[in-house]
Amino acid sequence: MKVKIIALLGSAALAFTSATLKAAPDVVQTALEKDTVALSITEGLTTWVGQRQAGTEAEARARTWAIAELSRLGFAKVRIEAFDMPTWVRGEETALITTPVPVKLAITALGNSGATPPQGMEAEIVYFASLADLEAAPAAVVKGKIAFVSHTMKATQDGSSYGYFGQVRRRGPDVASQKGAAAIVIRSIGTDYHRNPHTGNTNFSEGVTPIPAAAISIPDAENLERLVAGGKSLRMKMLLTPQNIGMQQSGNVIAEVLGKNPQLPPIVIACHLDSWDLATGAFDDAAGCGIITAAAKIIMDKGKPERTIRLLWAGAEEVGIWGGKDYALKNGDLKHSLAMESDFGADRVWQVKFHLPDSAKPLRDSLVRKLANIGVGSSSNKAGGGADVGPIIAAQNLAIIDLEQDGSRYFDLHHTPDDTFDKIDPVQLRQNVAAWVTVLSEVANYTGDLTMPPAS
Amino acid sequence: MKVKIIALLGSAALAFTSATLKAAPDVVQTALEKDTVALSITEGLTTWVGQRQAGTEAEARARTWAIAELSRLGFAKVRIEAFDMPTWVRGEETALITTPVPVKLAITALGNSGATPPQGMEAEIVYFASLADLEAAPAAVVKGKIAFVSHTMKATQDGSSYGYFGQVRRRGPDVASQKGAAAIVIRSIGTDYHRNPHTGNTNFSEGVTPIPAAAISIPDAENLERLVAGGKSLRMKMLLTPQNIGMQQSGNVIAEVLGKNPQLPPIVIACHLDSWDLATGAFDDAAGCGIITAAAKIIMDKGKPERTIRLLWAGAEEVGIWGGKDYALKNGDLKHSLAMESDFGADRVWQVKFHLPDSAKPLRDSLVRKLANIGVGSSSNKAGGGADVGPIIAAQNLAIIDLEQDGSRYFDLHHTPDDTFDKIDPVQLRQNVAAWVTVLSEVANYTGDLTMPPAS
Repeated sequence: MKVKIIALLGSAALAFTSATLKAAPDVVQTALEKDTVALSITEGLTTWVGQRQAGTEAEARARTWAIAELSRLGFAKVRIEAFDMPTWVRGEETALITTPVPVKLAITALGNSGATPPQGMEAEIVYFASLADLEAAPAAVVKGKIAFVSHTMKATQDGSSYGYFGQVRRRGPDVASQKGAAAIVIRSIGTDYHRNPHTGNTNFSEGVTPIPAAAISIPDAENLERLVAGGKSLRMKMLLTPQNIGMQQSGNVIAEVLGKNPQLPPIVIACHLDSWDLATGAFDDAAGCGIITAAAKIIMDKGKPERTIRLLWAGAEEVGIWGGKDYALKNGDLKHSLAMESDFGADRVWQVKFHLPDSAKPLRDSLVRKLANIGVGSSSNKAGGGADVGPIIAAQNLAIIDLEQDGSRYFDLHHTPDDTFDKIDPVQLRQNVAAWVTVLSEVANYTGDLTMPPAS
Repeated sequence: MKVKIIALLGSAALAFTSATLKAAPDVVQTALEKDTVALSITEGLTTWVGQRQAGTEAEARARTWAIAELSRLGFAKVRIEAFDMPTWVRGEETALITTPVPVKLAITALGNSGATPPQGMEAEIVYFASLADLEAAPAAVVKGKIAFVSHTMKATQDGSSYGYFGQVRRRGPDVASQKGAAAIVIRSIGTDYHRNPHTGNTNFSEGVTPIPAAAISIPDAENLERLVAGGKSLRMKMLLTPQNIGMQQSGNVIAEVLGKNPQLPPIVIACHLDSWDLATGAFDDAAGCGIITAAAKIIMDKGKPERTIRLLWAGAEEVGIWGGKDYALKNGDLKHSLAMESDFGADRVWQVKFHLPDSAKPLRDSLVRKLANIGVGSSSNKAGGGADVGPIIAAQNLAIIDLEQDGSRYFDLHHTPDDTFDKIDPVQLRQNVAAWVTVLSEVANYTGDLTMPPAS
């Protein structure tokens, strides 16, 4: 299907250079059919760096690799902005139902979990079908026991179920500790049926003891629920030996596609370089770095755009968005224009959302038309950005464009040992690059004002 | 679609009682729509017993559970035939690529693997794309190294790829040891992309040292292949501490549906009670026990069939078919008529195969017609039975009927931590029971001679 380019009218339309309009279909087609950069970066980070937990030597190796790769690709001003952040590392982790029948569990500690005694601990299990049930329980029911909190998270295309169900992980341990629980075990925040537990950060409130807090795989959780339904008393033995190793160095890797016009505030596009430690972080978020970088390189190779595009490969996202916060802190003096992020896997972009000034309506309309050509619909919901660009968006009230990825299988892989390179579908990955090229080729050449009106 | 029952002609046709012909559609429909026994047995073995490795206390608990369950269901002569067999048990198992980049591997020892020194071992990796490549390699290339043997197993509906690719596991370690390898690591014999390695038995020839032998998950194997392709020298650290714990008790659990006519040799139908230790063995083979037992119970509840049906819940299948061998040894004096087995998961039966005397053609034709009603096609290939009935078939040259299950996802789960109850599709499980009821209701009431002519 060929789409007729409709003549643009009005002053904002003049902000497009005619060169861009002609070039766009060409570069988009190239991305869709031929891009190898996104896959190569994803393969490199997952295979030649491996897991890249924030604050560890592995994340430092990832930065070294990133600097070499971004320089090799020809980006300008490739650099590290280092920062320190508190670091928690996993230790041994085993768990066993001891009564009524011995059952080994596939378990993993949540980030910031406390440790059990070195010889492990054993306690009775008390079951809650949801976080709300745990919250409603009297402390006497929980005290001294291992709280097992379940839920019914299902996959959604837009990942929206993570907000609600993720609370079991984010807040469950804090709630359980306040009620005197000896430990907490949650059904993994995920949607797969493999013996791979999902890790992820939790946080304890000031003054609340960090109790051992872990996730079990979904098959294990459902098995445990069947045992609970059997009506007999259940006991669990667990050993978790994570440690807080204090302040460690992390860092953002930054690179640029220099724009022609230094008067125009740059665009910032982000992914994150760190991964959880259980796997090599292909979906979360090596692919994101591959996508934004491949798209930026295609733009760069076509000649200087009007605006500078800044690439932010953020450090330490998983463990508290330390990289995003540090970026905003160190780069707050520079006025930015627009932010975008890729951090939701590697499956196809299915929808675009905008947060633009009204004056940019022709830009928006043009992007909607062009994205439709590669199967991307549009939503009137407001774009929100992503974790790593969140702090700079908040600090500068930036315009945002979200290219939303299909998240139907994202929470099958998210924070599990299964988040590996083999999960990447190269065809969908290239469609992502094509969507990003479509947007960047217009936005980076848009010379109109992208300043948002003050938030009401 | 209703199928007209074609009038049967000839002497063999008279072997069918008219009661059976009328009863069959009714009991099949019941199985298809209402059976709960197969699912309940599968749930019981996986949830209330758990993993059931042969020769361990867990398998003994499984026998106790089986005796109680089969008695409760009303079967006759429920009993254990105990035997002893050599037992190997898993220990610790960890592995790490140390050079050129640190990569933790998802690894599991193969049954009968040797142990590493207690502090582990480290050696250079030498890669072979297939067992044939390992076999062709001069000993000097392998000596002192960790052989990494890969392959390209793909899923097939009939599971036929297991015969060929399974040789990497069955024979690879023996070959590697004979060439002086320090250890061997194989790509799991499986078809999934999860960080779950597939275990399974291997065997070393008389006089060959059992070296450490393990499988890594398929994502790990593909990652390792990418590292190998990078051209740098690779080293691996591994720790495996399995042990041979000598002769231990296992046992077959046997139960019967008593037939009216003691002159007619019984039918034996089998599954196996033991599982590998990494999971609760839902597909392999709790479901098989559920299927054959649910079908036998439906037949029993309709009134005595002509022939006795013997249920064999075999012990110690995974580790050397010890139960099947012991059954043939202890029951060889009793003439049997026909053998069947369910040991290929819980997905739908798609095809029937026969190994019957020519005189039983009307029986065969009738079964083909009736099975077609529940979506089962027929093959002119000869039925082969299964592992547990193999020894009695060989000893007595028995007739056989195979109800072949769809194995498209069988090797995603086989011998992995993922073989858990949640994988069972209750609709497909009931279709299995319906197929078994279809066959058993005719065969157990077939009064013709099922003696096979001597094998040529």
